Amino acid sequence: MRPVSIVGVGQIPVQKQNPEPLRTMGAQAVQLAMRDAGVDTVDALFAGNMLSDELQGQKHLAALIADESGLAGVEALQVRAATATGAAALRMAYFAVASGEADLAIAMGVEKMSGGQATPALAKALDAEREVPAGATMISQNAFLMQLYRAKYRMPEDGLANFAVNAHWNALTNPNARFKNPTTRERVMDSRIIYPPIRLMDCSPVCDGAAAVVLAPRSEARAYTDQPVHILASSVATDRFRVRDRQNPLDLDAARQSAIKAFRRSNTNRKDISFYEAHDAFSIMACLQLEAVGFADRGEGWRMAEEERIFLNGDLPLATFGGLKARGHPIGATAIYQTTEIVLQLTERAGENQVANPKIAMLQSVGGAATTLLTHIFGT
Amino acid sequence: MRPVSIVGVGQIPVQKQNPEPLRTMGAQAVQLAMRDAGVDTVDALFAGNMLSDELQGQKHLAALIADESGLAGVEALQVRAATATGAAALRMAYFAVASGEADLAIAMGVEKMSGGQATPALAKALDAEREVPAGATMISQNAFLMQLYRAKYRMPEDGLANFAVNAHWNALTNPNARFKNPTTRERVMDSRIIYPPIRLMDCSPVCDGAAAVVLAPRSEARAYTDQPVHILASSVATDRFRVRDRQNPLDLDAARQSAIKAFRRSNTNRKDISFYEAHDAFSIMACLQLEAVGFADRGEGWRMAEEERIFLNGDLPLATFGGLKARGHPIGATAIYQTTEIVLQLTERAGENQVANPKIAMLQSVGGAATTLLTHIFGT
Repeated sequence: MRPVSIVGVGQIPVQKQNPEPLRTMGAQAVQLAMRDAGVDTVDALFAGNMLSDELQGQKHLAALIADESGLAGVEALQVRAATATGAAALRMAYFAVASGEADLAIAMGVEKMSGGQATPALAKALDAEREVPAGATMISQNAFLMQLYRAKYRMPEDGLANFAVNAHWNALTNPNARFKNPTTRERVMDSRIIYPPIRLMDCSPVCDGAAAVVLAPRSEARAYTDQPVHILASSVATDRFRVRDRQNPLDLDAARQSAIKAFRRSNTNRKDISFYEAHDAFSIMACLQLEAVGFADRGEGWRMAEEERIFLNGDLPLATFGGLKARGHPIGATAIYQTTEIVLQLTERAGENQVANPKIAMLQSVGGAATTLLTHIFGT
Repeated sequence: MRPVSIVGVGQIPVQKQNPEPLRTMGAQAVQLAMRDAGVDTVDALFAGNMLSDELQGQKHLAALIADESGLAGVEALQVRAATATGAAALRMAYFAVASGEADLAIAMGVEKMSGGQATPALAKALDAEREVPAGATMISQNAFLMQLYRAKYRMPEDGLANFAVNAHWNALTNPNARFKNPTTRERVMDSRIIYPPIRLMDCSPVCDGAAAVVLAPRSEARAYTDQPVHILASSVATDRFRVRDRQNPLDLDAARQSAIKAFRRSNTNRKDISFYEAHDAFSIMACLQLEAVGFADRGEGWRMAEEERIFLNGDLPLATFGGLKARGHPIGATAIYQTTEIVLQLTERAGENQVANPKIAMLQSVGGAATTLLTHIFGT
C-alpha cells in the first residue's frame, strides 16, 4: 500500500443559505483545492453528499460536480455513510491513491440543506422500518443518550455547556464559520429545550457548505506542496444499527474499535494526539467520543470541557475552527472541512486559531446514532 | 497494488415484487456469497443502492445490511453512480482489497423498486436543474439517442429487435431471471411504443433483487475456492454530464475511455473478450456500447444482434443470463448480478447458459445517460 498525503485544500464559507446551486458550490471548493495543489486536473473525484436526493432532486452527483469543475472525463463516484459521509469520501480517495489506481484524487463534500426539510431527511440515517415510524430523529436519539448519560453519571445540568462555548469562541476567528457570535455558559443554559434534555445550543445548525482536499502518493507529495500532511491511518467500524440493540448504548463501540484500528495502523496512541476533531453534531456525542477513544474515563468526558482542556490552549483542543456546532455541519462536507482545518493546523497556517506545536491530529466522523464510525489520523 | 480475485458469489431471484424488506433481501445475498466462499465474516462491505432514499426512506444502508447479515462491527460504506451503482460497489471492494486495507471484502447491491414511483426516482440520474424540469427521464434520453442513431445510420426499424430476443431466450434457463417468456422479433415489434421510437420491449423492467460477491487477494484466493476468478482491471470514466453537451452523443466517449483504461491495465484487447455484459437497460445503449468499445464499427452495432453474433453460440455472447432486459435491472444490484454470472461462466458453472471455453469477460455499467461508465475485466 502506498502512503498517501494531502497536497491541497479548499473550502467555501459555511452559510445559513448559500445562494449558489449545489453544483456551483461543489465546483468552487474543488477548484480552490486544485489551485492550492497547483494542478488543473486529477485522476479521480469522490463526492460526499447525504441529502441532494431529496433536497435538490439529484442522484448522480459525482459526475455532475466533475463536469462543473472542468473535470468531465475523470473517474467520479459518490459515497455515503449517512452523517459521516464526508469522511467516507476521504476514505475512498485514500483507497484510490493507496491502491495505485489514482495518482491524484479529490475527496470533496457538498451539502445544501437550506430551503428544505432537513430533519426528516436526516432521520433516514436511522432505521426506516423500526425507529423512524415511532418518531425517531437524530435529535431524539441523541436526547436518549444524553438522558441515559445524566442518569448514569450524575453530570450537572450544565456539564456539557463548554462544548458550545469552546466551539463558538473558536468559530469567531474562522472566516468560513457559520456562527460569528461568542456564547457563554449562561446563554447555552438559557437556550430553549428542543427535545428534553437537549437544548438548542447542544446542537449543530442546518447549513450549506462545500470543501475539498487533493490527495497524492506521499512519495510525490512535495511535487505539489512544500507542506504535505500525511494520512497516517484511515479506518471504519460499525456497531449494531439501532442504539437500543446495543448492550451499553453509552459505549460507542464503533468509535472505540475504529480508533483502535487507526492507532494500530499508524503506530500511534492517544497520547500522541495533539488535537482532536470530534463529531460534535450534539455535545453529548463529542463527550461520548472522548470516552470511547480513551481520552477520558467513562463518565468523565464532560469534565474535559468543564476543565477547559478542550479549549485552544488546553491539552486536547477540540473543534479548533468551531466544530460542527459553530463552524457548521453541512453533512456531506463536514469531515472535509475538518480535514482542511487539520491541514491548516498541522502546517501552522491556522492564524488566530493555531494550536501550539501540533504534531498528530485525529478526526472522527459519526454516521447515524454512532452506527458508522470513521477515524482518520494525520501527521506531518 | 495487490491483484484481487472473486472467491464467492450469491444472488437471490430477481422478481417483480419481492415480499421481503430491503434489508432481508440484501442480507440473503450477502449470506449466500459468504457461504459460497466458506467464510462467516469479512473485513468490509460495500453496498450499492440507488433508490432506497425515496422508496424505502433509508439513507444509511451499508451499516443496516451489515447488521442484518450478522456483520455488525465491520467496515460498511455505501457507494453510488446512479444506474451504474452496483459496479461502483464492486470497484470500492476492489480498492479495499487491492490497497491492503481489507483481506476479505463484500461488494453487494440491493434494490427494491416495487411499490414506488421508479421513473421519477430514476430521472434523478439526470440533471435536476437543466434536464428534469423539461421532462427528461431515462427513457426520453435513450429515445433521443435511438432517434439520432436511426437518422444517422439508416438502421431498419427492427434493427435492435434481436437484443431483446437474445435476452429473453437466455433468461429462460436462468432460475434467477425476472422474465421466463421467450420472445420473437415480431413480438418485440408489436409491443407498444412508450416514448417514440422506444418500444416496451426495448426497455429493461422495474424489479427487486440483490446480489453479492466476496473479494480476496489473488495470492490467498485458493484458500476460499478452487475456482477463483480474477479481476484483471477495474476502471471508471465520465463524460459531459448532459447528453446535449456532447459533441457527438452517439459516441459514448466514457464507455470508450473506460474500456481503453481497462484494456491497458489488464494487457488485453477486445479480441481477447470471450463474452460481454453490456448495460442493456435499453437496447440502443447496448448497441452504442458495442461500438464504443470497438466490437463493432460506428453504425454497425445493431448488426451484431441482427447477425446473431451476440447469441450464446455467437462470437461475442451478450447478456448470457438474460441481461438487464430479461434477467432484470434492480439498479444497485445489477452489476453484481452480472459479476456473479460472469463468475459462473468463467468457472464453467453456467449450466444451460454456458458459453464455450470462456477465458476473459468484460462488464460495462452505465450511470445516467452514459455519463458515468465503469468497466471491469475478469479472467481465470
